[in-house]
Amino acid sequence: MEQLFNYISKRSTLSKELKDYINSTAKVKNLNKGDTLINQDQTVDKTFFVLDGCLRSYAFAKDGKEHTLQFALKDNWISDYIAIFNNEKSTQLIESISDATVIEVSINEGIETVFSQFPEIETLHRKNLERNVVSLQKRILNQLQLSSLERYDLLKKQFPNIEKYALNYHIASYLGITQQSLSRIRGSYKSN
Amino acid sequence: MEQLFNYISKRSTLSKELKDYINSTAKVKNLNKGDTLINQDQTVDKTFFVLDGCLRSYAFAKDGKEHTLQFALKDNWISDYIAIFNNEKSTQLIESISDATVIEVSINEGIETVFSQFPEIETLHRKNLERNVVSLQKRILNQLQLSSLERYDLLKKQFPNIEKYALNYHIASYLGITQQSLSRIRGSYKSN
Repeated sequence: MEQLFNYISKRSTLSKELKDYINSTAKVKNLNKGDTLINQDQTVDKTFFVLDGCLRSYAFAKDGKEHTLQFALKDNWISDYIAIFNNEKSTQLIESISDATVIEVSINEGIETVFSQFPEIETLHRKNLERNVVSLQKRILNQLQLSSLERYDLLKKQFPNIEKYALNYHIASYLGITQQSLSRIRGSYKSN
Repeated sequence: MEQLFNYISKRSTLSKELKDYINSTAKVKNLNKGDTLINQDQTVDKTFFVLDGCLRSYAFAKDGKEHTLQFALKDNWISDYIAIFNNEKSTQLIESISDATVIEVSINEGIETVFSQFPEIETLHRKNLERNVVSLQKRILNQLQLSSLERYDLLKKQFPNIEKYALNYHIASYLGITQQSLSRIRGSYKSN
């Protein structure tokens, strides 16, 4: 739990009350590679803070192919936020693509209650949302404006260890390219 | 300004102090069709609340083509949030695609100061961000999972008057389809 406390105190204030609250609602979970944390068409009342390892969210396209929406490494949060914020059933799947350790934070008591009790958590959440909006808008823009090579470079900057964890089709479907194109891009790196 | 006050009081509490603050920092602007509110590579210290008419944000793709990122109709907010949240120069353009009236809200005094003075505005902003995250994630998912006809249907549900304001290439580039495909979709509506 110390890693989550460090994360919070770097970005906000961590009172004794907040620490107690987190200790009482959050729990550490060890995951095996391939474990699914959220399936399709479920009620989602949990969000996950990654301590170690790598998770991804993905969805199925019309043609049945998997498309990676997001990766989450150390100190990243991941869940199906469409389901949480809209009070809908899940449309994404969350899986662990390596052995991993996460903190599972239950939000089924009503996140609004948590915010009114701990306004500093609302601020932290608000800042994360701002980063999330930026990263989603940039993802849409990058798809329009950057070459696949440039998008691959960006992914590696954003997630330095991603290739340690992710399979080719995870990365290719995140970048919106075929696995063949990904191989070509990697080949052009080695020849430089 | 009444329309913005209604918008806030429907979603949050509107104190006399907040009303005074808004009156002192926000101003109503009348726009002509084609007016550009934010250009590329600018410092962005304003956000716009649409009272009437339609605005859009767009960016240029590698091939020089315009791509519509977002529409904003009555009671919607629009700005370049990448630039604002990341403290970067603008990468999107915002233009009025009809004669329009907006409230221009200046945020150059530092939005954090506003939030600490009016926590209810932070809550309102946080809820808007949640909706924004949902809509951006859904946009990415819909591009994977829905046909162009289904995406067109959704757009019309989300923005019922959009066709009164938007040109064919605005809508086609929002949907990620050619103008020819858009015409075919519209044709199939009429023949039903």
